[in-house]
Amino acid sequence: MSGAERTYDVVVLGGGSTGENVADIVVRGGLSAVIVEPELVGGECSYWACMPSKALLRGTEVLAEARSVPGAAEAVTGEQDVAATLARRDSFTSHWDDSGQAQWVGSAGIDLLRGTGRLDGERTVVVTDADGGSVRLTARHAVAVCTGSQASMPPVDGLDGVGPWTPREATSAKEAPGRLLVLGGGYVGCEMATAWQALGSEVTLLQRGGRLLPGLEPQAGEAVAAALRDAGVEVQLNTAVTGARREGTEVVLTTDGGEEFRGDEVLVAVGRTARTGDIGADTVGLEPGEYLSVDSTLQVEGKPWLYGVGDVNGRRQLTHMGKYQARQAGAAIVARARGEQVETAPWSPFVATADDVATPSVVFTTPQVASVGRTAAQAADAGLPHRVVEYPIGSVAGASLFADGYEGTAIAVVDTEREVLLGVTFVGPAVAELLHAATIAVVGEVPIGRLWHAVPAYPTISEIWLRLLETYRG
Amino acid sequence: MSGAERTYDVVVLGGGSTGENVADIVVRGGLSAVIVEPELVGGECSYWACMPSKALLRGTEVLAEARSVPGAAEAVTGEQDVAATLARRDSFTSHWDDSGQAQWVGSAGIDLLRGTGRLDGERTVVVTDADGGSVRLTARHAVAVCTGSQASMPPVDGLDGVGPWTPREATSAKEAPGRLLVLGGGYVGCEMATAWQALGSEVTLLQRGGRLLPGLEPQAGEAVAAALRDAGVEVQLNTAVTGARREGTEVVLTTDGGEEFRGDEVLVAVGRTARTGDIGADTVGLEPGEYLSVDSTLQVEGKPWLYGVGDVNGRRQLTHMGKYQARQAGAAIVARARGEQVETAPWSPFVATADDVATPSVVFTTPQVASVGRTAAQAADAGLPHRVVEYPIGSVAGASLFADGYEGTAIAVVDTEREVLLGVTFVGPAVAELLHAATIAVVGEVPIGRLWHAVPAYPTISEIWLRLLETYRG
Repeated sequence: MSGAERTYDVVVLGGGSTGENVADIVVRGGLSAVIVEPELVGGECSYWACMPSKALLRGTEVLAEARSVPGAAEAVTGEQDVAATLARRDSFTSHWDDSGQAQWVGSAGIDLLRGTGRLDGERTVVVTDADGGSVRLTARHAVAVCTGSQASMPPVDGLDGVGPWTPREATSAKEAPGRLLVLGGGYVGCEMATAWQALGSEVTLLQRGGRLLPGLEPQAGEAVAAALRDAGVEVQLNTAVTGARREGTEVVLTTDGGEEFRGDEVLVAVGRTARTGDIGADTVGLEPGEYLSVDSTLQVEGKPWLYGVGDVNGRRQLTHMGKYQARQAGAAIVARARGEQVETAPWSPFVATADDVATPSVVFTTPQVASVGRTAAQAADAGLPHRVVEYPIGSVAGASLFADGYEGTAIAVVDTEREVLLGVTFVGPAVAELLHAATIAVVGEVPIGRLWHAVPAYPTISEIWLRLLETYRG
Repeated sequence: MSGAERTYDVVVLGGGSTGENVADIVVRGGLSAVIVEPELVGGECSYWACMPSKALLRGTEVLAEARSVPGAAEAVTGEQDVAATLARRDSFTSHWDDSGQAQWVGSAGIDLLRGTGRLDGERTVVVTDADGGSVRLTARHAVAVCTGSQASMPPVDGLDGVGPWTPREATSAKEAPGRLLVLGGGYVGCEMATAWQALGSEVTLLQRGGRLLPGLEPQAGEAVAAALRDAGVEVQLNTAVTGARREGTEVVLTTDGGEEFRGDEVLVAVGRTARTGDIGADTVGLEPGEYLSVDSTLQVEGKPWLYGVGDVNGRRQLTHMGKYQARQAGAAIVARARGEQVETAPWSPFVATADDVATPSVVFTTPQVASVGRTAAQAADAGLPHRVVEYPIGSVAGASLFADGYEGTAIAVVDTEREVLLGVTFVGPAVAELLHAATIAVVGEVPIGRLWHAVPAYPTISEIWLRLLETYRG
């Protein structure tokens, strides 16, 4: 394709779920679009994150549920079939084959260019394919950078040399390592520790700080740490790893306290960095490797033709928020291309207001952690008048029917001035599907007085809502 | 207690969950209250409805889930332990012992009189205990009738003589009957057919009309009928039973079409009637056996001292709605006792607005049916401008991760003038906990445009919300 030139209304760098959604929205809006992707179309979520990790975790979850219901428990006489679980994971990643996704792109009326796209000045992207061919793309209206993020490597002596796993290797491994060291106690570290311990590894989880899942309510990290320990994971908090080496096939991590931890593999899950190192950022006056700074319509500041959508802007690094941003940015691109007014007030169709005040997330550990909006600490930091109410989920009839010995916690942060919910966190088995009720309540700013009329069906776990309201009323 | 007289602020007839909640609310409001109950404190829900039925169903549900996840399925090599399931059910009913509930009543500062309470003119209740003793109660402010409902017996020749099961016997049976005939395809009939077929009975379900679960969206009854048939239940629609007899230990039902159905037991689940036949209704000018006609504060029309709360008013015969009505009526009783204004506009703290427009219900069959608000047919009957959108739940990533071959349907009824949800129905495995999101959206009248900002976490089944919005947008 050497030397070719093409013009599109919109050029999308990166064919993960965010890029796919930006392209889809603008094509639905009547614009032409091309996606540029050097790897698998579908991105991290499809192949190395959400899908494989949840497929690895689901069997463990449902067996734990069955074992906690007398009558059903007696039927569970065997163990999880690890090979079958891995095979199911492979099927959920389409065996790392993106032909189905590429086909969808075509059927959605989006062009696809396989290769590395780099900005080359305003509205221009040069795509280089694996054979060295290149195409120069011109964007009439917008370039949307949706290149995402990649695993950060912390400055640990020797770490590069031990062949560490990133979340990609952790979600795609063909067998359970004998002993797995996990560096980092965020949601990736916690989920992968849960998964591989259940699938046969001896897992050691090393967390620099004093608790797991540090951005969430403290009760979440405490419950997950306790459950990981019950499952046999060695959880080490306040443990800063300073060195790494291989001794034969063994990985040895050393800490600032002089301890050594040994394993067969080490997963590094200490955060993400922007994938902007190789996108030609410097050709448009941006700093390579930095997150793109964007406004509420996901437009890069000072560059009305450039958008940064999804992980690459560093706002909220979650698949569903990338797709949400894609819908909002896509709508803004279409409206601006038509010369229409783009309303930027909160909650307009063109802005990603939920990024700031209503981002939902689920950690698929056992127990699960589902949260939306502000934690108590975040409400305090923001200076919002608030009260925190907490209630044990296990005392709700629906939860005890769900599983004997159900343990969980619900925490609601209420704005005492506006009498609306600022945030809600559920910790417990199978709470993932409880979350959307909270998300709607937070996003809809539904007053507490009205929520009393939202009656939970009896006997469901959702009755926790009634208990939270009663606790708030006092 | 013969000849005694006592005066309370509030006299509550019936100690089911509704009566308990009325008494609790008024006592919290500073009034004195007594509950009069001739049977078990806690009522139908605790002993012969919600709790035992869900305990009977839970093992079947969770095993079906485990069997549909390759990797976990291999561990499920045995069968459900029926005795253990029945024992778990017994434990959820506290072995039909109400001492725990009676203790709660006392701890809540509520008096309890065991006996049959009958109105004896305005503000007066005479309680007769099992030994023939009696107490005359005077209510300073209100009598709340919370006597509930009982199973209706249809006019079928010979039915009384065959010793039919009501829902009470169906939920409390000590073993699975060999062959169970179920008369009625509402939620009780469908749930009990699901439960007992899974626990070893051969079940035949006979429904007079052309579909199961007739008040819900038609897709619900169709899916449940198909699943019952897959499980081995013989489902007979359009079948009117006209006669019943015993031949030895065998029950024989005959139909208007001349067919015969044979079983060991027959469950009659064709609806409920008001338990007002023996409450002294005639002493205050009401018709014994009829539902109490009440206003939005649950006050009996024309009798400001009398309230009819829960099943007994015929509005919404669901435990959670009885408790909801109890909260609203309780608040109204307290406010009126204080001489305060009782706001009766929709959604005020004193009115049961959700009865009319936002009643949630879950049918705990396999698949489950969870619904709130108006069906498409109800929206049409009400003359509301509306559009119906439907989407298969199984095509959502979270559902396919949940179970291979997940089949389900989500149906949303949107008010096209106000752009809010009128009703939502989910049909599928484990949809019960999806419902509260819909309930909050309906009750909160959250506009569709705002719901786009309520992002479902990926990959959960709740992503169905995004698909419904996309389908509505077109």
